[in-house]
Amino acid sequence: MSIDPEGLADRVLAGDRLTLARLLTLIENEEPEGLDALTILYPHTGNAHRIGITGAPGTGKSTLVNRLAGVFRKMVGDKDDQGLSEPDHVAVVAVDASSPFTGGAILGDRIRMRDLAGDPGIFIRSMASRGTLGGLAKSTSSVVEALDAAGFGIILIETVGAGQAEIEIARAAHTIVVIDAPGLGDDVQAIKAGILEIADILVVNKCDLPGADNTLSALQAALTLGYAETSSSPEGERGEEKSMKWRPPILPTIATQGDGIPQLANAIQDHRACIEATGEWIRRERESMKVRLEGLLREQLVLRFMEQHSDVLFESLLDKVLTREVEPRRAIQLLIKGEAL
Amino acid sequence: MSIDPEGLADRVLAGDRLTLARLLTLIENEEPEGLDALTILYPHTGNAHRIGITGAPGTGKSTLVNRLAGVFRKMVGDKDDQGLSEPDHVAVVAVDASSPFTGGAILGDRIRMRDLAGDPGIFIRSMASRGTLGGLAKSTSSVVEALDAAGFGIILIETVGAGQAEIEIARAAHTIVVIDAPGLGDDVQAIKAGILEIADILVVNKCDLPGADNTLSALQAALTLGYAETSSSPEGERGEEKSMKWRPPILPTIATQGDGIPQLANAIQDHRACIEATGEWIRRERESMKVRLEGLLREQLVLRFMEQHSDVLFESLLDKVLTREVEPRRAIQLLIKGEAL
Repeated sequence: MSIDPEGLADRVLAGDRLTLARLLTLIENEEPEGLDALTILYPHTGNAHRIGITGAPGTGKSTLVNRLAGVFRKMVGDKDDQGLSEPDHVAVVAVDASSPFTGGAILGDRIRMRDLAGDPGIFIRSMASRGTLGGLAKSTSSVVEALDAAGFGIILIETVGAGQAEIEIARAAHTIVVIDAPGLGDDVQAIKAGILEIADILVVNKCDLPGADNTLSALQAALTLGYAETSSSPEGERGEEKSMKWRPPILPTIATQGDGIPQLANAIQDHRACIEATGEWIRRERESMKVRLEGLLREQLVLRFMEQHSDVLFESLLDKVLTREVEPRRAIQLLIKGEAL
Repeated sequence: MSIDPEGLADRVLAGDRLTLARLLTLIENEEPEGLDALTILYPHTGNAHRIGITGAPGTGKSTLVNRLAGVFRKMVGDKDDQGLSEPDHVAVVAVDASSPFTGGAILGDRIRMRDLAGDPGIFIRSMASRGTLGGLAKSTSSVVEALDAAGFGIILIETVGAGQAEIEIARAAHTIVVIDAPGLGDDVQAIKAGILEIADILVVNKCDLPGADNTLSALQAALTLGYAETSSSPEGERGEEKSMKWRPPILPTIATQGDGIPQLANAIQDHRACIEATGEWIRRERESMKVRLEGLLREQLVLRFMEQHSDVLFESLLDKVLTREVEPRRAIQLLIKGEAL
């Protein structure tokens, strides 16, 4: 059964979750109806608090994200302080950049949904990368946009792993939570170094494990060092990267038992209030949209170029590069100028 | 002291390692001299066997790669069977996609160099991503090209982590080695799923740890399953992805003691011989160059567009997108068509 984009958008706005799930699939597959529906939905976006949650493998992210979603559903929305407002609807987008081929996401969703069963105010969606990385970041943005339009006030974007892909995805969020845990190997510790610098909130999960105190104090030391470095260059880029007044807290949690999760939810809300007050919220909105537009521009330019030029020319240039007649960079210059060889 | 591209290229071809190191830095920083030198060097490329080595954090990749480099240096090159030929020169390119900000690569290089001290036939280079992922993949290709021209017959491309970025980088290799180890967490196991499918050779390192037999048999089972799936769709894409006759072996190693490393080196040589015989080598060369050219095309198209268009238009479109007047995809279409709003 086919459905027109207007119909899709209407049903999504009316709160139809099955249609929402279908729309997300259409968006992921880049189907025209899905993209057209997204265009219609776009004016309804801009209300969600996007929270990126990342960290190395083995830190217990999924469990923590599930618990956090549950806690947010019990918090009263802060738009109305009469105690009358509904809690925000919460969406979880779990992004797995490490699984390029297999489509194992759906089973995972079902298992995770079961933990949160019965609450229609929570929606979980997993995404695996199906091609290039740029593709994954792009379709994540689109999926988040659709969820924003569908009325989810809180969107948790969980990334599996802590590589560059995950960092790029996390950077599109308003609030970035980085999860660590005791007892991870040296390699994993090394991964942390880069990601520490973009954290708004640090969490040490699995605090019931031996070594938790060490992990907490190591993070504290790394953070203090980072701040000392930043303050020595008063107007450096890294200083501007963070909100002026916010200093990332380090929170201990035991997600399996729910310990520390309400405190984490509060810290996330505090961060939101802080960056809204300082103008950092608007700056982050602008920056993430800028990155998004640049990605779309890149994609559209290539598409348009490919439509206007024959594959034959590209293939013959490829041949010449492989036989070492032409150097790759020069080949592309020739291709763009439309010069024959 | 400045140097012209011709001078750089000449010295690199003459085996000057200091100049090579300098050239690689120029290439990484996209300095014109570096890129021009690469153009001059390009006809000298096409001789190296590129070996991608990847796997989850904690599998002991660096130690294994160091050992493997040492073993390759003791093997007599197979071009001359009189026992007179020199062993291949070996380059190691260690790519860390997870460290976007810090420049900690150099210290690591020195520590690793020390282990292999005294052999001028081994060259180690670390690369951290300095911007986007596409940038990392691109500069890795260029660095590998320079090493190829400089006469390294074997280039080991080691990626830290096992995300999409690493997979994309590994795919540019002729032979892909995936490393596993016993006792990794569930998250890490999950990461493996995607990467298994691109492995030409599987290694279970740290085979002295408890659970090694389980890891070996789990991999064996996963591999058998994968092959069963492939053969059920006789002309499926995945079938064609791999070389026709090659079946990935699973090799146990204890890299810290050097156990199993000569067998791994032999398996890598066997894989090369196999794919050369079946034509798969040429297909992989073509595919990886195609990906490279597409990346360069994308980059050049955007550069050219940006040169021809004012930032003012882009910024004003960004404003309109942020106020929800225009949807992102539509904004880009307008920008490309040069239509005002």
